Amino acid sequence: MRSSRCINDDQIGHEMHNLIADLYPLCRSITGNGLRQTLNILRQQIPLEIHEVPSGTAVFDWTVPREWNIRDAYVRNPHGQKVIDFQKSNLHVVNYSIPVQAKMRLDELKEHLFTLPDRPDWIPYRTSYYNESWGFCLSHNQLLQFEDGEYEVLIDSSLEDGQLNYGECYLRGESSDEVLISCHACHPSLCNDNLSGVVLATFLAKKLRSLTLRYSYRFLFIPGTIGSIAWLWRNQDLLARIKHGLVLVDVGDTGKFTYKKSRRGDGEIDRAAVNVLKHCGGDYQVRDFDPYGHDERQYCSPGINLAVGCLSRTPHGEFPEYHTSADNLEFVKPESLADSWTQCLSIIHLLENNRRYVNLNPMGEPQLGKRGLYRRIGGPKDGGVEEISLLWVLNLSDGENTLLDISERSGLSFDSVKSAADALVEHGLLRPLPQ
Amino acid sequence: MRSSRCINDDQIGHEMHNLIADLYPLCRSITGNGLRQTLNILRQQIPLEIHEVPSGTAVFDWTVPREWNIRDAYVRNPHGQKVIDFQKSNLHVVNYSIPVQAKMRLDELKEHLFTLPDRPDWIPYRTSYYNESWGFCLSHNQLLQFEDGEYEVLIDSSLEDGQLNYGECYLRGESSDEVLISCHACHPSLCNDNLSGVVLATFLAKKLRSLTLRYSYRFLFIPGTIGSIAWLWRNQDLLARIKHGLVLVDVGDTGKFTYKKSRRGDGEIDRAAVNVLKHCGGDYQVRDFDPYGHDERQYCSPGINLAVGCLSRTPHGEFPEYHTSADNLEFVKPESLADSWTQCLSIIHLLENNRRYVNLNPMGEPQLGKRGLYRRIGGPKDGGVEEISLLWVLNLSDGENTLLDISERSGLSFDSVKSAADALVEHGLLRPLPQ
Amino acid sequence: MRSSRCINDDQIGHEMHNLIADLYPLCRSITGNGLRQTLNILRQQIPLEIHEVPSGTAVFDWTVPREWNIRDAYVRNPHGQKVIDFQKSNLHVVNYSIPVQAKMRLDELKEHLFTLPDRPDWIPYRTSYYNESWGFCLSHNQLLQFEDGEYEVLIDSSLEDGQLNYGECYLRGESSDEVLISCHACHPSLCNDNLSGVVLATFLAKKLRSLTLRYSYRFLFIPGTIGSIAWLWRNQDLLARIKHGLVLVDVGDTGKFTYKKSRRGDGEIDRAAVNVLKHCGGDYQVRDFDPYGHDERQYCSPGINLAVGCLSRTPHGEFPEYHTSADNLEFVKPESLADSWTQCLSIIHLLENNRRYVNLNPMGEPQLGKRGLYRRIGGPKDGGVEEISLLWVLNLSDGENTLLDISERSGLSFDSVKSAADALVEHGLLRPLPQ
Repeated sequence: MRSSRCINDDQIGHEMHNLIADLYPLCRSITGNGLRQTLNILRQQIPLEIHEVPSGTAVFDWTVPREWNIRDAYVRNPHGQKVIDFQKSNLHVVNYSIPVQAKMRLDELKEHLFTLPDRPDWIPYRTSYYNESWGFCLSHNQLLQFEDGEYEVLIDSSLEDGQLNYGECYLRGESSDEVLISCHACHPSLCNDNLSGVVLATFLAKKLRSLTLRYSYRFLFIPGTIGSIAWLWRNQDLLARIKHGLVLVDVGDTGKFTYKKSRRGDGEIDRAAVNVLKHCGGDYQVRDFDPYGHDERQYCSPGINLAVGCLSRTPHGEFPEYHTSADNLEFVKPESLADSWTQCLSIIHLLENNRRYVNLNPMGEPQLGKRGLYRRIGGPKDGGVEEISLLWVLNLSDGENTLLDISERSGLSFDSVKSAADALVEHGLLRPLPQ
Repeated sequence: MRSSRCINDDQIGHEMHNLIADLYPLCRSITGNGLRQTLNILRQQIPLEIHEVPSGTAVFDWTVPREWNIRDAYVRNPHGQKVIDFQKSNLHVVNYSIPVQAKMRLDELKEHLFTLPDRPDWIPYRTSYYNESWGFCLSHNQLLQFEDGEYEVLIDSSLEDGQLNYGECYLRGESSDEVLISCHACHPSLCNDNLSGVVLATFLAKKLRSLTLRYSYRFLFIPGTIGSIAWLWRNQDLLARIKHGLVLVDVGDTGKFTYKKSRRGDGEIDRAAVNVLKHCGGDYQVRDFDPYGHDERQYCSPGINLAVGCLSRTPHGEFPEYHTSADNLEFVKPESLADSWTQCLSIIHLLENNRRYVNLNPMGEPQLGKRGLYRRIGGPKDGGVEEISLLWVLNLSDGENTLLDISERSGLSFDSVKSAADALVEHGLLRPLPQ
Repeated sequence: MRSSRCINDDQIGHEMHNLIADLYPLCRSITGNGLRQTLNILRQQIPLEIHEVPSGTAVFDWTVPREWNIRDAYVRNPHGQKVIDFQKSNLHVVNYSIPVQAKMRLDELKEHLFTLPDRPDWIPYRTSYYNESWGFCLSHNQLLQFEDGEYEVLIDSSLEDGQLNYGECYLRGESSDEVLISCHACHPSLCNDNLSGVVLATFLAKKLRSLTLRYSYRFLFIPGTIGSIAWLWRNQDLLARIKHGLVLVDVGDTGKFTYKKSRRGDGEIDRAAVNVLKHCGGDYQVRDFDPYGHDERQYCSPGINLAVGCLSRTPHGEFPEYHTSADNLEFVKPESLADSWTQCLSIIHLLENNRRYVNLNPMGEPQLGKRGLYRRIGGPKDGGVEEISLLWVLNLSDGENTLLDISERSGLSFDSVKSAADALVEHGLLRPLPQ
């Protein structure tokens, strides 16, 4: 893979946002039609294999649940008015609610109503996957207007044997060694948490398809937790091939980047992500691994322990809109999405190009001047490759140091040391070692 | 040992202070009746074997000195008045003073008088164990009132072949591996420096006697330096059993805790003490080992090199009352003593319970929800064990990490990870490894 | 080598400055008469072998250039006045200028004139060793007075087959292991950059000649870059003997000390230099290795990788006078030179005396008091060796730690631990291990 980031980022950001808008209305869950429809839309963008795991399948300590589907849901007040309507927002129903058709007094109903008193205009997002239950979510201001009396409740849902689906896009590179890119696609109308990651992974796959790649890339579009566990259970034989990985989530807001390291903490992916963020020009934060968060919890469980980190902007739970109706199409920005895409490509570019070289003139410095690689009297440098980058690459290319090592020790950007290495190879001063 | 710190700390503090008050009047030294009387009082509290090492015994590079005893001492002024009187404070006589009966002019006498001009009301504490000499200590204000003339001096002491004594309390646990707790008991009427440590060790032994213990515990009540050297010389065969150790001293003042690491610096005792202090809620400081201080100097000499640290509040020499008559019964506080006792028990609790576990579902996370270990929809967690602690223990229990490792990496308290481990063992998700 | 730094530093500083003054007028370059004259003057101070490498010799990737000599150079204005005159300052001619005799208009001439508009009174220093060219350097104010018209240009130089010279002073010590001291001697009338290092190396050699040495010392007075490369090429067989090394440059200004570590970063020389600067009482800075700078670039190239650091005061390029006529005899100070000499001797003293010892009483502390090594009652310590130094040396002398290790861990100066070790050896408490 060669560096080719001269794409119109502005256009990419808008294309990404448009795809989010297409996916936004679907009522996704960890199983069911909304998830399948989502994967089918993604299949129009990239080659995606859609897998099925039947309900009841034991996957490690878990069991794939029955498939959940929902057609309609509402609550009518004593006047017969629909005061909660699933057709207006799929967040109104607690995800995985069992079917209900009943009449009940407001005080009974209230045990099944969830609001955010601190954010009285927002609808919360709630789920009850593994505990049979039902409920409605609504804004607190809505609830305050409810009068006493008998309410009519309908949840036209089904929980039946079916399947869990996930999408997989595999791009073959020169090596069977893999980079894993994973995102969860199980949240309904929520943009930053779930759709931003889904769309970023999709656009990365679109871009990488056009390139000659050193690594093979595997993109997973899965329901959270149960999806990654089911995938790990099915693919235990290929785990050894996964050399690096990223979970992508919350990459569309305007916050600074956050990289959460893998459990190993010193994986090449960890160092690559930190290196790219350090040189990207913007603010960022790096966090050590902890066993809370997204599917990196599974990829970094002690028996799996893959070098998989998590790239976000503002992490889950740290923006007020998280898991509410305010995580909507306005909350994610085309510029943020495009910037996230650019940084991911930079990380991939680094992984693709990170290797060791041997200085072919290791005794003293080679004479750069006679090769036109050194500034002449008085004038500023000729442009092109920085002299200091050439010197660092020559000095550390003893067969032990990768370009990433050289970037870290010198403080120079990876691009700068990579350009220097290319120039030195071209002039016969450096030889790449087999990977 | 199970955690059982629900004792009335208030009561313990007063009991400890009362024992200090009982011991305070005795004129202890590195040998002699004062030391023996002290050990006999402690024997009323805990099972204590009192050992004897004869004067003249060569112990490594040292020789056990002649036994020192003192009956009376005073200085009379030209008017025949007792202007210095050993009966009023045993600090008045330089410890190990040779017998003296003489008359002399004030200017001659002054060469044997020691005061603290900067603290004119306090009597200093001085010794001359290995250099035959004599002297008196007194407040500077006292000295200023001395008139010229002939003074009568009496020190009715003796230096004769006898013995050096030390007390040893051994509590047998499941393992012959030992924890060593050492304090010096050779200072006369000084409370923080010597009696606070003596009493803390005593009350720890009292408490541990009532518990089922993993480790065996050895409490030493010894004269400083020569006592620990004599003990080491006599017990070279059992040094290999000592896995952890603490010297206790200056634990009754109101200062913050100070932990001084062992020479090894990274012993389990060092990490345990730092961990407990970090989570105890109060201020504290940690210092690297240095070869100055108390008997850790001997336990950490290069040929011994035990993992023995030193726990204090304000360290020796860093409080003005140190080695003066102001280090008295008012200077040490029941609350400080009780708090020191609590922290020591926490350190011991940590050592007793620190072990490795194996996650029995290492591929992905186990499903905590179906075991009632995970919060349900919407509500706050059910109380009891913290979910994040469960996740950390599961994630790091790969057979390599101890609970202390997990506490350090997660930043959670040891108690928190221990509770999580207990819950996970109970639910069949975790198995302890043999110790 | 025993410590003997009781020399009159004031006198040394002036002697060093006088030698700089003698060398200042010579027009040095990387070859030629000026360099040879310089080496001949140094040979009056120390035993110096002057080596010759013929023009055209291939040395690794480089070729020894033709020898450059210059007799005169000037520019006459349209009135026939010498407006630039090599006889006034050898900086006026671009070093290694080819011979020129021509008349040209001012605008043509200007392509060959170099000034410093920001420092309008200073003459810059420029070279063109490996690119055939010519030019004059002058102050910007001078240039501003040039009128249009035809100028007469003369550079009476020659570029002919000859030789590259360097000087080598070898002092044999007890061991064939070597310490390398290198400085470049190829700059014309520039004092801090080049002459301060040359003179410091000379005075170090003068001092070391008078001492019994553990290491052998090799002082190199070489033209920069090509000289060190030629020397390395000729001496590949003895590189393994070089255990430590220093490049000396910019050691005469009044700035704080700067130590730049070797590529290895943790060599004994790196730790020794940092240790000495830490305890020298003045401000200093330590920098990690980078492949820019002086001949350490060659000594630390990947195929050589010697433990050679660089000691300076203000580093190259960080003082405005660097490579200008303002780097003159006023810019370097006798006190700075003497101080640099003292610190270098301290570093050498440390290397000479750094070794491991074994505590002969490793079980507990030995009784220092009976040997007169411990303070007695009440009084301050007896002077001489610090008690805490004795304790540190005893505690860490387990055969693993060098005196430098002990100095680093204790925070005590090397002199302090060395004095303690000497006292302990004298009292039979410590035994040095074979080196």
